[in-house]
Amino acid sequence: MNTTELIRKKRNGNQLNKKEINYLISNYTNGKIPDYQLSALLMAILLKGMNPDETAALTNSMLNSGKIIDLSSFKGFKIDKHSTGGVGDKTSLIIAPIVASTGIYVPMISGRGLGHTGGTLDKLESIPGFQTDLSLSESKKVLRKCGAVLIGQTKEIAPADKLIYALRDVTATVESIPLITASIMSKKLAEGIDGLVLDIKTGNGAFMKSSKDSIELADSLIQTAKSFNKSVIAFITDMNQPLGNYIGNWLEVYESIQVLKSKIKNDLYALSLKLAGAMIYLGKNAKSIKEGEEVAKKQIENGKAFNKFLEMVELQGGNINYINNPDKYPKSKYSRKIHSVKSGFVKEIDTYQFGMASLELGAGRKTMEDKIDFKTGIILSKKINDYIKKDDLICEIFSDSKTKIKLAEEIILKSIQFSKTKIQTPKLIKKVIQ
Amino acid sequence: MNTTELIRKKRNGNQLNKKEINYLISNYTNGKIPDYQLSALLMAILLKGMNPDETAALTNSMLNSGKIIDLSSFKGFKIDKHSTGGVGDKTSLIIAPIVASTGIYVPMISGRGLGHTGGTLDKLESIPGFQTDLSLSESKKVLRKCGAVLIGQTKEIAPADKLIYALRDVTATVESIPLITASIMSKKLAEGIDGLVLDIKTGNGAFMKSSKDSIELADSLIQTAKSFNKSVIAFITDMNQPLGNYIGNWLEVYESIQVLKSKIKNDLYALSLKLAGAMIYLGKNAKSIKEGEEVAKKQIENGKAFNKFLEMVELQGGNINYINNPDKYPKSKYSRKIHSVKSGFVKEIDTYQFGMASLELGAGRKTMEDKIDFKTGIILSKKINDYIKKDDLICEIFSDSKTKIKLAEEIILKSIQFSKTKIQTPKLIKKVIQ
Repeated sequence: MNTTELIRKKRNGNQLNKKEINYLISNYTNGKIPDYQLSALLMAILLKGMNPDETAALTNSMLNSGKIIDLSSFKGFKIDKHSTGGVGDKTSLIIAPIVASTGIYVPMISGRGLGHTGGTLDKLESIPGFQTDLSLSESKKVLRKCGAVLIGQTKEIAPADKLIYALRDVTATVESIPLITASIMSKKLAEGIDGLVLDIKTGNGAFMKSSKDSIELADSLIQTAKSFNKSVIAFITDMNQPLGNYIGNWLEVYESIQVLKSKIKNDLYALSLKLAGAMIYLGKNAKSIKEGEEVAKKQIENGKAFNKFLEMVELQGGNINYINNPDKYPKSKYSRKIHSVKSGFVKEIDTYQFGMASLELGAGRKTMEDKIDFKTGIILSKKINDYIKKDDLICEIFSDSKTKIKLAEEIILKSIQFSKTKIQTPKLIKKVIQ
Repeated sequence: MNTTELIRKKRNGNQLNKKEINYLISNYTNGKIPDYQLSALLMAILLKGMNPDETAALTNSMLNSGKIIDLSSFKGFKIDKHSTGGVGDKTSLIIAPIVASTGIYVPMISGRGLGHTGGTLDKLESIPGFQTDLSLSESKKVLRKCGAVLIGQTKEIAPADKLIYALRDVTATVESIPLITASIMSKKLAEGIDGLVLDIKTGNGAFMKSSKDSIELADSLIQTAKSFNKSVIAFITDMNQPLGNYIGNWLEVYESIQVLKSKIKNDLYALSLKLAGAMIYLGKNAKSIKEGEEVAKKQIENGKAFNKFLEMVELQGGNINYINNPDKYPKSKYSRKIHSVKSGFVKEIDTYQFGMASLELGAGRKTMEDKIDFKTGIILSKKINDYIKKDDLICEIFSDSKTKIKLAEEIILKSIQFSKTKIQTPKLIKKVIQ
């Protein structure tokens, strides 16, 4: 096969077949096709698209560039959840123990913070001692003992995706539905799962700003999952404000603990029940998503979900004293309460900017070398349609640096818009696609 | 400026401005932008296009990546011709001496054979001793003495084009009107010319198969030339059969000599008069293209054009004994007369395959390392709408290898289609655009 001719074929809007896609991906991964040819192909894919068969073939080639974890010796249902990422999105920490506590296996491979969004791995690592870089055999041991494990992508998992993602990042070829689909699905399928629940965020704090793009991505992910015979449900959910009230690594673990202990029942709680409910339904421990949600609620109320979380943290090396007594966790040197300079209903929160404020505080990385400050972050007191009087508390921010606090405060004050009347509350769950 | 953002801008179909294009081209040329980013940009340009301002800016950046020859001390008009290439196209050898013999300067930078087409440099080098790799100062001396010089692209001329062309070749980004325009014009403008005549070939032996694409390219080249204040005329000409009757390097020099000596008056002669006529008109030695053609005809008839050719060959180191006595040139060991197995009018000649037959004979290079056999080639006796009886001579082929002759014969026999009645003769000059 001739690489240039294959690029030309895609450039002309024609379909590449399985063999051709496999030739391209396997030879790129083993270094025989240079970056400059793959980047031209990626741009042609972004502009000319790929149909579901091509997307499935691309996913398959990327999946087979590495190891597929063999969980056939685990006799129950294996399921994961994937979120496209948002600000304050810590549902993984809550739903993994809920679902595992019902006897369904949850082998979860998560990522690190990217731009304005936090990453599950970074959040977990805020728990002293918590290990996310377990080997595959160590992960299997944890999974067998407690039913859930949360680790990072190992080198053995879909190495083609890692290479291609780095190239997409610098060639303006990130925003392509088939490329995003193959990137997500190749990693998820490598986990050896039977089912997958997808949380596609949409709104001003999401990577997909429009509902149309989110639905298109959801459809593509669902079609690909089905072509690999996986059970799948996708939710299009709102990201026009942070999810929950806590942003920042330890702060998000803290909020997760409160949800698991039945102490917080906000939008984070509602979405966690919905996602866990769908996983429980797909895992056949409930007859519907609704019934699955009831099971999830019960597992929180009877303490089993929290106990499962404790068990998992302990098995992955985390210090559970901080989980049992979260108020003992080290505090930032400085904190600042931000008060409103206006009165009115909260009309709009620029969620992207909230994420950027958190990044400026040190909760994320600007370059891969940056070290995260786990303690820092934002506790948001008000959300859309809440009424704020002048001088009311909007949020509290934490940092070891006064300069960073000042910078974050400036960003936050510009990010909130007020209205004299209530607006229509954005729906948390915009669409369910099966 | 951020390279990825500029790629994204073009990818989204937006216009890049002069500064942005210059940033991209100058930083690519000096190695600061890697191949993989430029190839993504090239694919975005191919699929999203460039408007005339962008194309002019791209041409300008590529032109300024190298030296622009300063011909301001030459007091006459300076003009060149560019052809997009075809089979048997040797007009440069004929028109350079015709035009120079009228007192107009012709500083011509030509190329080598590419795929199925021959190259002017290779043809000239079939003349023993002929030097095409003159330095810029040597070229100027030849130009001053005889009014014409035919050389190859030096390293100083548009180095960005050389780099970008190599990348386009392996990333399926050759067939883009703005990229082709900038590649041609950056080299031509570097010659220090005042005017340019364009010969855009269209048909089954041309790089542009359709008339529509050819006109689009002509329009783009003309707009770009005008934006640099150059006089310009473009001809869309037929390439549905070889131009003239001789294909192969020395054979083409031979036919050029016959045209310059008034001994051959075929389609090659007609097109040469037209192109030279346009150059003479632009150079203000005639009041119209038509009058320019008359001047060109006269320069052939009075022997001045042939004498100019002799002068130029001698100044560039070529042995003029072979020009004066072309029949003394070494002959191939073997020749084969190919006779028709059918009767009828020649309906169609697959000109691309004719070019490939010539390549198989050794008149071109399959890889850059191949050595050309200057003697080899094809003399074609019949052209479209000529009547051929069974066993009539179609063409004669020459080579030092019987195997090559057999291979070429097979290709040639498959390349000619017959018809019982005459077809409409393809017009040699399809369109003149000014």
